[in-house]
Amino acid sequence: MNFIRKIVQVHSKEDAVLHGELKKLLKFSPRKINKYKKAFTHRSVQMTDKKGNPINYERLEFLGDSILGSVIAAYLYKKVPSGSEGYLTQMRSKIVSREHLNELGKDLNLIRFVKSNIDQANIGDNIHGNIFEALIGAIFMDKGYNFCQKFIHQNVIVPHVDIAKLEGKITSYKGLIIEWCQKQKKKYTFDTYEDSGNDPVKHFSVKISINGEQIAKGRATSKKKAEEQASKRVYFAFQNEISLD
Amino acid sequence: MNFIRKIVQVHSKEDAVLHGELKKLLKFSPRKINKYKKAFTHRSVQMTDKKGNPINYERLEFLGDSILGSVIAAYLYKKVPSGSEGYLTQMRSKIVSREHLNELGKDLNLIRFVKSNIDQANIGDNIHGNIFEALIGAIFMDKGYNFCQKFIHQNVIVPHVDIAKLEGKITSYKGLIIEWCQKQKKKYTFDTYEDSGNDPVKHFSVKISINGEQIAKGRATSKKKAEEQASKRVYFAFQNEISLD
Repeated sequence: MNFIRKIVQVHSKEDAVLHGELKKLLKFSPRKINKYKKAFTHRSVQMTDKKGNPINYERLEFLGDSILGSVIAAYLYKKVPSGSEGYLTQMRSKIVSREHLNELGKDLNLIRFVKSNIDQANIGDNIHGNIFEALIGAIFMDKGYNFCQKFIHQNVIVPHVDIAKLEGKITSYKGLIIEWCQKQKKKYTFDTYEDSGNDPVKHFSVKISINGEQIAKGRATSKKKAEEQASKRVYFAFQNEISLD
Repeated sequence: MNFIRKIVQVHSKEDAVLHGELKKLLKFSPRKINKYKKAFTHRSVQMTDKKGNPINYERLEFLGDSILGSVIAAYLYKKVPSGSEGYLTQMRSKIVSREHLNELGKDLNLIRFVKSNIDQANIGDNIHGNIFEALIGAIFMDKGYNFCQKFIHQNVIVPHVDIAKLEGKITSYKGLIIEWCQKQKKKYTFDTYEDSGNDPVKHFSVKISINGEQIAKGRATSKKKAEEQASKRVYFAFQNEISLD
């Protein structure tokens, strides 16, 4: 099925389903469900409100982009006290790059919520990042800044922002772990296998063991991503022993 | 005296003086006075903290710029439900333009707090906007987002943001009021006079009366600004009667 779910008449049952799915995904209970519906509506649907204003995600995307930028700015300001204004600007650009935002949107599989009248193949890859930003705008309108900040922290910063990696000090966690094990004469195994479970999207899991002891697990939509995730966890477990020089 | 106040050794007495002046200006009691001192320190002072990190306003300027952008974005999003993403982007650019920020910094006369080793004449006009942004960064670090939002609302949005004017529907409030009075056969007077009081900077005041009744007052650093400010207040007093067509 190559089409994004077509627009259907909104019923309260549909709202209830969306609410349930969002609650599972966002790990909180959304209040203003209409904000989220707007965040997932593509302009091709050509819906308008009673006053003739178009209903689609573009305004929420503008808002979410801005909120995301300020949350990341505040995070970097506090996290890197030695970083100059230029450094902070550059780091933020990397974190909120189009490519990165598309990845975040894909990771949450937001596209499944999107209503559009355009074939998914023709809608472009940026839709993933755009609706991720729109979702942040919707959360802001629904729950306010502080809540939004927490959401961004849990879903963007903790799993995806890594100052050392962004600075280019680490290009691959897997490589780093293997190199370290070899230097330290430790035995390591990466046990990687398909693990989609009931997920509609293919997933892979990995278990990393060092000297026979399992240290970390990872699970993602590609082998590489799962291995990087698990390797990063190993890195944080042994951070004091692993040198980046 | 053509020099910005030179750097002096920080004493608690100086802190107390700054605290008092800031409290008067900001209309709240600052807590973390060091944030504000940093916001008013130019890089030419070449101060560093114990870890060797430079102490100047540049990082706070980065932070404040971002917070200001998101507060204005949220304001426009709510205020103009019919505005497209492009419209919102354009309006925000006008509000946070370098020129406008310099004006805001000058209106608060922030330059009097600045420590610099450069002659004020050589430091450039943008310092006014830069330290205004840095001040917002300091307020954010001191008091958090919601407080910062209130401060921006009171000091940027209410006195300076006017959607109709930004859209070019109104280019001069004074012109608008005069035109309206002439059409409606109302007598009007602009009583404009120098009114610096104890202020170190020259100020002007204006009183506008219509048919002998005083409707609004204004006070600013130029005749034109004071008249625009007071005319804008007249406009809001008669908004329902004045047509923009």
